[in-house]
Amino acid sequence: MPYKANVVVRYKKSVLEPQGQAILLSLREQGDESFLDVRVGKYIEILLEAENLQAAEEKVRKLAEDLLHNPVMENCSITVSQDD
Amino acid sequence: MPYKANVVVRYKKSVLEPQGQAILLSLREQGDESFLDVRVGKYIEILLEAENLQAAEEKVRKLAEDLLHNPVMENCSITVSQDD
Repeated sequence: MPYKANVVVRYKKSVLEPQGQAILLSLREQGDESFLDVRVGKYIEILLEAENLQAAEEKVRKLAEDLLHNPVMENCSITVSQDD
Repeated sequence: MPYKANVVVRYKKSVLEPQGQAILLSLREQGDESFLDVRVGKYIEILLEAENLQAAEEKVRKLAEDLLHNPVMENCSITVSQDD
């Protein structure tokens, strides 16, 4: 059965995130002081085959651990649902 | 008033997304054929000051157009809510 999963990978709050800082700096240079923080993370869309929702979640969790995120610096949230 | 916004930037379906392809290739090399597609996009978290929700949405929409996404290759979705 096909399942789709979304994985959001974000730097931990304690880690400086350079891409967002660059965007913030660019906004400040344009004279816009209303943006207080910008942080850039990854949004990963996955399409997979699995026997059931639980198996799909397990596969995606393992993929996220192995290839998608670095637990020292990043947090990761996963949502899995049946693909219509 | 503080608002938080999330911007998800994704490559259009018609555009080859190399990071996701690399992950998919790595999974295939490990012998896992159950993953059908992987696409990597950006997830941007923004904290900003604005007078009201409409003004906040307008600011974030302009930021997304100017700095966060390339409309030729990418789609962009924005959600804005009051920061608690």
